[in-house]
Amino acid sequence: MRIGILGTGIVGRTLAAGFADRGHDVVMGTRDVSRSLASRETDQMGNGPLADWLAAYPAVRLDTLARAAAHGEVVALATSGQAAVAAVEQAGADSLAGKPLVDITNPLDFSAGFPPTLFVKDTDSLAERIQRAAPAAHVVKAFNTVTAAVMVNPTAVGGGDHSLLICGNDAAAKSIVAELARSFGWRDVVDVGDVTAARGTEMVLPLWLRLMGALGTPMFNFKVVR
Amino acid sequence: MRIGILGTGIVGRTLAAGFADRGHDVVMGTRDVSRSLASRETDQMGNGPLADWLAAYPAVRLDTLARAAAHGEVVALATSGQAAVAAVEQAGADSLAGKPLVDITNPLDFSAGFPPTLFVKDTDSLAERIQRAAPAAHVVKAFNTVTAAVMVNPTAVGGGDHSLLICGNDAAAKSIVAELARSFGWRDVVDVGDVTAARGTEMVLPLWLRLMGALGTPMFNFKVVR
Repeated sequence: MRIGILGTGIVGRTLAAGFADRGHDVVMGTRDVSRSLASRETDQMGNGPLADWLAAYPAVRLDTLARAAAHGEVVALATSGQAAVAAVEQAGADSLAGKPLVDITNPLDFSAGFPPTLFVKDTDSLAERIQRAAPAAHVVKAFNTVTAAVMVNPTAVGGGDHSLLICGNDAAAKSIVAELARSFGWRDVVDVGDVTAARGTEMVLPLWLRLMGALGTPMFNFKVVR
Repeated sequence: MRIGILGTGIVGRTLAAGFADRGHDVVMGTRDVSRSLASRETDQMGNGPLADWLAAYPAVRLDTLARAAAHGEVVALATSGQAAVAAVEQAGADSLAGKPLVDITNPLDFSAGFPPTLFVKDTDSLAERIQRAAPAAHVVKAFNTVTAAVMVNPTAVGGGDHSLLICGNDAAAKSIVAELARSFGWRDVVDVGDVTAARGTEMVLPLWLRLMGALGTPMFNFKVVR
């Protein structure tokens, strides 16, 4: 399957590698290709230069946000929350029309330090903002409640006995995303509802961040026991 | 142990019965004893008149909020979120001083219908408001992320293989609450941190409510898999 990834941070890289490892045809999109390739920066999370990462994953190609979106039969949005809507606008609503748009972003605002607050919540969500920015895309909120390594390797936590929360308006798009998740090893995909259910899955982030602190690791997840 | 319960709704009754069944000496507090006893109302949740319930649980005594608070070595706050701070004020900060105050409330605002929004979040929490209303009490946020029946009978969901989230500033108070929880059958009590961690455990409610809708039952809970 042709996969477009919007964003080149740890989430974008981890997903790109995860999809490429399973034989998908992956294009990763960035705002400014030559600037991204020229950068020698290591980010706050300890991720080295993108050019070095791409050299290690030759199956993944780098291009503009618009070309990555046009390439994908499925497109994953893996930017920071602050950059998400602008990235969708740059990717182009037309290129995303009719496609599952997997929204992994979280509306985290670190401007007052840690723990961050949420810049949208309760009566709206980042997923809904993204859906409004690309009205004909089929936004599926998913993977936003686990750390990047767990997204593509759920068995690394508790043998994979935990739940992936997804939501969105389009049943077929949710099925495609659930199937891709199962290819990563997810066994329990819980459909929480339409895109407004993202208010719930985004508002779990404050608890997630507290738990990361209490447990001393991001390698955990919730299982919906019923 | 002497237990005071503030509130006579389904959460208060379920906890009162749960504690009484385990041999604790329980006083349930209400704002107006004679009015509570005279009421023949069945509430929105289908709970019948309090007098009928008390007749079925003769081990539980009804008294004022202040007397229930004075009675308890441990006090549980089981009112609606809207009524929580006023109930603590009526109970009396002095009567609660030095005691574990188990805060089960959620800041749900149903004024715009369902799903409710949260009337405090992100930079403050209802638990912190309650802690400020009773500064010498040892507020322990707990049980607010499960339905009443699960609070005192966790084995009813997935054989009890799920997690109770607690937080608060006082380690000894958290130990007492964890021990009481274990007497109900809780096997995994996760200490999320100080009282500000209640921002996280309260903000999980929107997800909880969506999941109740998606699963068609309130009989579920999260397990923190790590």
